Amino acid sequence: MCQLLGMNCNVPTDICFSFEGFAKRGGETDEHKDGWGISFFEGKGCRTFMDVQPSAHSVVSDLVKRYPIHSMNVIAHIRKASVGAVKLENTHPFNRELWGEYWVFAHNGDLFGYDPILTGCYRPVGTTDSERAFCVILEHLRARFTERPPIEKICSAIREKAQEIAQEGTFNFLLSNGEIMIAHCSTELHYLIRQHPFDTAVLKDLDVTVDFQQVTTPSDCVAVIATEPLTENETWIKIEPGQCMVFRNGSVAECYKD
Amino acid sequence: MCQLLGMNCNVPTDICFSFEGFAKRGGETDEHKDGWGISFFEGKGCRTFMDVQPSAHSVVSDLVKRYPIHSMNVIAHIRKASVGAVKLENTHPFNRELWGEYWVFAHNGDLFGYDPILTGCYRPVGTTDSERAFCVILEHLRARFTERPPIEKICSAIREKAQEIAQEGTFNFLLSNGEIMIAHCSTELHYLIRQHPFDTAVLKDLDVTVDFQQVTTPSDCVAVIATEPLTENETWIKIEPGQCMVFRNGSVAECYKD
Repeated sequence: MCQLLGMNCNVPTDICFSFEGFAKRGGETDEHKDGWGISFFEGKGCRTFMDVQPSAHSVVSDLVKRYPIHSMNVIAHIRKASVGAVKLENTHPFNRELWGEYWVFAHNGDLFGYDPILTGCYRPVGTTDSERAFCVILEHLRARFTERPPIEKICSAIREKAQEIAQEGTFNFLLSNGEIMIAHCSTELHYLIRQHPFDTAVLKDLDVTVDFQQVTTPSDCVAVIATEPLTENETWIKIEPGQCMVFRNGSVAECYKD
Repeated sequence: MCQLLGMNCNVPTDICFSFEGFAKRGGETDEHKDGWGISFFEGKGCRTFMDVQPSAHSVVSDLVKRYPIHSMNVIAHIRKASVGAVKLENTHPFNRELWGEYWVFAHNGDLFGYDPILTGCYRPVGTTDSERAFCVILEHLRARFTERPPIEKICSAIREKAQEIAQEGTFNFLLSNGEIMIAHCSTELHYLIRQHPFDTAVLKDLDVTVDFQQVTTPSDCVAVIATEPLTENETWIKIEPGQCMVFRNGSVAECYKD
């Protein structure tokens, strides 16, 4: 299996604190050492840092830990390979363009034997079940809508297809277009919202503490989503299996609720 | 305008030497300071490092300079913005998937007023003429072939469309799918092939020399393509305006010649 980390906020924020803890799980405090990646949306643009080396021992992840990139939507992934060899093309997150927006996807789980026929624009470059499922979702959106619809309709269509794919195995994922973050839980996924009054947070995987009150303003809202909680002193909410949540501006987007 | 740098080889090779000189032109020895990017193919996979900061002063480019990534196809770009603001989404190289392969593109030139109608799968995320032209090329390939044809046919189709787009302005570009590197010249583009017997190379933009004989084997072939020659002691060949060259395994691919 793998682990997921996502961040969605109402103001560009860096993820160095969370990523530092998360990256330890890629080869030190846990076994997800078959590559890692992190995608940052900056406006409409998106850049991804990735490596087949374990995140705990990667020169590239060292850069990400110490170089604060401010973003409103971030998806990160540490891999424990199940379907698909350890190669760059099998490293998440995956990125495709649809309707002039980048869509970024990362998956935790197994869809053994999931081999749908793809007849549209999107084909996997690698050999993972994850990338294939991502292509299926995008193909579904393109087939369903002739042009880019309002975001609520996109979310509904994604939710519908996610529930279908989830029948095939374990389908925890994060998906973002830089505007919203979709979090789908099959088995394990948690989240929390940090907002005023901010407090101190203590990482589980290494001895690092941050006082968020010192680095935020009272109007900031930051949602963090992770397979396994990253901090030991905060209350993480478990997302129920089968639930598909949408985050926007650092909060749960009520109008897109299941 | 901007500058391009490409490398195509028959064995995975690092580009640290060339990139070190090239990156100086993004804000120190030249004025291409409106962002930069570099894409490395590693097998079928591709990863891009990019920044809106000038390449001469970017923490990310510092990593690329000192972290040898071995690749058979690399495309890099340093930008001097003409069409499109300085934003991440306007930073080259651009990347799209077609027929289960990543295609990477970078452009030097201006296509002022070039505003073709795009009706297919690919839409620009940013506002550059460059990304738009890239979408046109990919849309042309998709419309022309119902499934992925042999690489010679892809090259012919790209050459045909490139000549058409070049009527609209200045269209120097590099385009690669990790197998071949296409170099199209409108105004300025040079190349050289390094092969046995290897020699010493001296960068123009900073005081760095490398003896390639120490770091290669006799069967290695490395093609380097650049807007402006990067070394002062080697013979660079000027690509003629209007010429579209294809490189494969570090050599000019004769069978795809104009």
